[in-house]
Amino acid sequence: MTISLGELAVRFGCELHGDPAALVDSVATLGQAHGRAVAFLADSRHSRQLGETRAAAVVLDRESAAGCPVAALVSENPRATFARIAAVLHPRERPAPGVHPTAVIDPEARIDPSAHVSALAVVGAHAAVGPRAVIGPHCVLGRDVRVEEEVWLVARVTLGQGVTIGARTLVHPGVVIGSDGFGFAQDGGRWVKVPQVGRVRIGADVEIGANTTIDRGAIEDTVLEDGVKLDNLIQIGHNVRIGAHTAIAGCTGISGSTVIGRRCMIGGAVSIGGWLSICDDVVVTGTTMVSHSITSPGVYSSGIPLEEAHSWRKLVARFKRLSSLYDRLAAVERAVAKLVGNARGAHDD
Amino acid sequence: MTISLGELAVRFGCELHGDPAALVDSVATLGQAHGRAVAFLADSRHSRQLGETRAAAVVLDRESAAGCPVAALVSENPRATFARIAAVLHPRERPAPGVHPTAVIDPEARIDPSAHVSALAVVGAHAAVGPRAVIGPHCVLGRDVRVEEEVWLVARVTLGQGVTIGARTLVHPGVVIGSDGFGFAQDGGRWVKVPQVGRVRIGADVEIGANTTIDRGAIEDTVLEDGVKLDNLIQIGHNVRIGAHTAIAGCTGISGSTVIGRRCMIGGAVSIGGWLSICDDVVVTGTTMVSHSITSPGVYSSGIPLEEAHSWRKLVARFKRLSSLYDRLAAVERAVAKLVGNARGAHDD
Amino acid sequence: MTISLGELAVRFGCELHGDPAALVDSVATLGQAHGRAVAFLADSRHSRQLGETRAAAVVLDRESAAGCPVAALVSENPRATFARIAAVLHPRERPAPGVHPTAVIDPEARIDPSAHVSALAVVGAHAAVGPRAVIGPHCVLGRDVRVEEEVWLVARVTLGQGVTIGARTLVHPGVVIGSDGFGFAQDGGRWVKVPQVGRVRIGADVEIGANTTIDRGAIEDTVLEDGVKLDNLIQIGHNVRIGAHTAIAGCTGISGSTVIGRRCMIGGAVSIGGWLSICDDVVVTGTTMVSHSITSPGVYSSGIPLEEAHSWRKLVARFKRLSSLYDRLAAVERAVAKLVGNARGAHDD
Repeated sequence: MTISLGELAVRFGCELHGDPAALVDSVATLGQAHGRAVAFLADSRHSRQLGETRAAAVVLDRESAAGCPVAALVSENPRATFARIAAVLHPRERPAPGVHPTAVIDPEARIDPSAHVSALAVVGAHAAVGPRAVIGPHCVLGRDVRVEEEVWLVARVTLGQGVTIGARTLVHPGVVIGSDGFGFAQDGGRWVKVPQVGRVRIGADVEIGANTTIDRGAIEDTVLEDGVKLDNLIQIGHNVRIGAHTAIAGCTGISGSTVIGRRCMIGGAVSIGGWLSICDDVVVTGTTMVSHSITSPGVYSSGIPLEEAHSWRKLVARFKRLSSLYDRLAAVERAVAKLVGNARGAHDD
Repeated sequence: MTISLGELAVRFGCELHGDPAALVDSVATLGQAHGRAVAFLADSRHSRQLGETRAAAVVLDRESAAGCPVAALVSENPRATFARIAAVLHPRERPAPGVHPTAVIDPEARIDPSAHVSALAVVGAHAAVGPRAVIGPHCVLGRDVRVEEEVWLVARVTLGQGVTIGARTLVHPGVVIGSDGFGFAQDGGRWVKVPQVGRVRIGADVEIGANTTIDRGAIEDTVLEDGVKLDNLIQIGHNVRIGAHTAIAGCTGISGSTVIGRRCMIGGAVSIGGWLSICDDVVVTGTTMVSHSITSPGVYSSGIPLEEAHSWRKLVARFKRLSSLYDRLAAVERAVAKLVGNARGAHDD
Repeated sequence: MTISLGELAVRFGCELHGDPAALVDSVATLGQAHGRAVAFLADSRHSRQLGETRAAAVVLDRESAAGCPVAALVSENPRATFARIAAVLHPRERPAPGVHPTAVIDPEARIDPSAHVSALAVVGAHAAVGPRAVIGPHCVLGRDVRVEEEVWLVARVTLGQGVTIGARTLVHPGVVIGSDGFGFAQDGGRWVKVPQVGRVRIGADVEIGANTTIDRGAIEDTVLEDGVKLDNLIQIGHNVRIGAHTAIAGCTGISGSTVIGRRCMIGGAVSIGGWLSICDDVVVTGTTMVSHSITSPGVYSSGIPLEEAHSWRKLVARFKRLSSLYDRLAAVERAVAKLVGNARGAHDD
């Protein structure tokens, strides 16, 4: 897609320093950009590259504009503006409406005529696919699934019985939504399966990364509210509820029945226990273990940065002897107290 | 499915307080139940909800029965009894026997006439599918796979060559069983692949969660004994053996050749090293790192609960200076010993 | 495959103690081997088993040869030699060239006549499959994918638009390569998607484990160099670059834009932050959190081995009070300093 800098400036409210008639057709990094590419200055780390860029234009903030050797699109939020420009220049190509002849569609499913169902997809009874939705190759939609308008299941997405997906949600390959939760009752050393009869309800404008899994509720539903963003290889247990616009990085696991607030940012490889409650606007840094509820917005951590292994082993050994350290300190404190007493006594003599 | 309370009481050995002719047709939570729904009192946390429930009946223990405003099904193990009642009221609908015309079946595979093979499944040479088994859409069964009676592969399950699955085992979407283990020999800075020629043998009554992976043995087999329950996104390395009725929560990884005993409970995001041995009846709490064998039943941990990030950074800094703390303490101890000696000497004067 | 010990010795440069005409046809463990099986002595842990083995021959090092009761193939690198012998005895059966009639191939894709495309695979426009490549059942190759000679996609592998895979690379089921990276810009409490327009380039002789995910670059490409080995359930973020012959164990996650050197060995369940740089020849042990760059070769750790839970809870409580320990020690140090001063004063009297 080719567009003029002037049109981009008007469309995204940027101040343009440069020729409004200049044409651009792609995005690139500051270092690699050339010809008709638009780059952006992410942060001060890359300001050295700005001086040498051969981009057609750079999206940046007001302070950095002076140092820009090419056309500048000045924005209050360069990253968001760049994201929107990239979406214009590199639109996701929507396949033509229609159902591929190799797709297997239950006669009782309803596919909107403007939707696309790709090769070898399977759509079950009473499933409904909305306007302009894209069901990629090898997707499986179970009974009673409902997929709203412009939902995009990239490929090989499995939606279990009764799953609902809100408008414009994007789901990447390998995702499983609506598998049984991990629910068993102990009985005489054996496990009795607790049937999982709830559903999964996903809001609008959600994105779900590759090979992530989201379990159906045990009785009530598992819920992702609007605008939630999940990275790859995340596990969401049954009856979890994730508040609107919360983003969660890869390899994180959330145990059953935990409720996470809105606008939270959860790092990668975080482990969140079950039956907890995390309030709005919480940030959890990567690899943290969340074992109790969080009731105040803020940043929380429990990861320990690496050390050279030999030093680390010593540290761990010392850590494991912490109780002896407390004991020894207490003994010294008592001895000193006695000495201080004696010394006072001596001086009192 | 509709059934009377009297029949449920007889079938599951409950004492019934209420009308045996009353009909129920579904399960629900205490808070949401109404009409013909059966609820249960999981534990004392929910006893407040008991007083307000509008369920048709509640499954609970003897102590709680007095506070129940509706019919009560009194059980010694309310959770297990509720699980069994739920299975009666919400049976998993078994699809009709037969092979879908789009499934690709090797002429040398044997499919029991009572089994169901769904759309677009692939069954390889010499594979055998047992009575009343369900092979869901998009499953791939390699050569020589054997699937016993009433096994249920929900959808998109991949079984590599020679995998065997015991009766009534339930496998969720995205599971890969029988992929190559991670085995390489170092040779002059390059890796030489160690061919993986073992199989995977899964027992009866096992359940395996979505997108979990289980590698085939390097030479001998990887084994899951009867009744093992695995959650989602678990990694089981080659030649691991997991004892009967052990349950493992999501995002846990087990390295090659480790043997885990019976009736263990392993939490989520646990990391278990290779070539270890864990005895029967061990509980490992979430996020623990298991780096050596466990020879006594008990509960084991190594996860550190989160802190507010600023406090956490201070704690980590202090932790990293632990050796200086030991040194300082030793210096103080020496000084005190000397002072005590002097003091004694002084008093002896 | 049947072969004589003499031929194996010549082919792999071993010294043979035993009958060169003896035939072998499989590999086995020392304990299970019998008849025509070749075993190997991995390390001293198994030397007791060597004395009792009924293998046809054992691959081992010079020191161990004396204790071998059967034919010995003496090698300087027994593990690598055994791996190569296993590959001869248990060759991966390459399916016959040709495209299965149920595969869905875009008319503009190019499939080499010597390649195999299996049942229900989908190959998109302008994709190219090289000589003797194997595209297993249920694989999906997007537009513009390029797969070089002898690549083997076992089953159900998804390659997004523009992914390239080098010669002889082996990819296990459930792998997703080329899904969108996790890139969003904040704008007024909402997330704006940053379109992901880069590709993934995978080198030659790479192996990728089941259900692993590799994101496409945001703008430039995500790159795995030649000989990289990835285990199962690994997450590789956008724009990561992994150096040649680096091996990474299961459940590890690498955040976006991190660069990892050559010949590194990264353990399981490691968490590596974004925008970091790890130099060549680094070893990171399992469960380590890598939160800053590593500039010297060596071994690095931050995992804490498990404890019995009661002791562990005490340790954590003491750890959380570390600042009080420092305060108390400082107080004691001051008191002792004063006492020492007084004592000196007293002796000076």
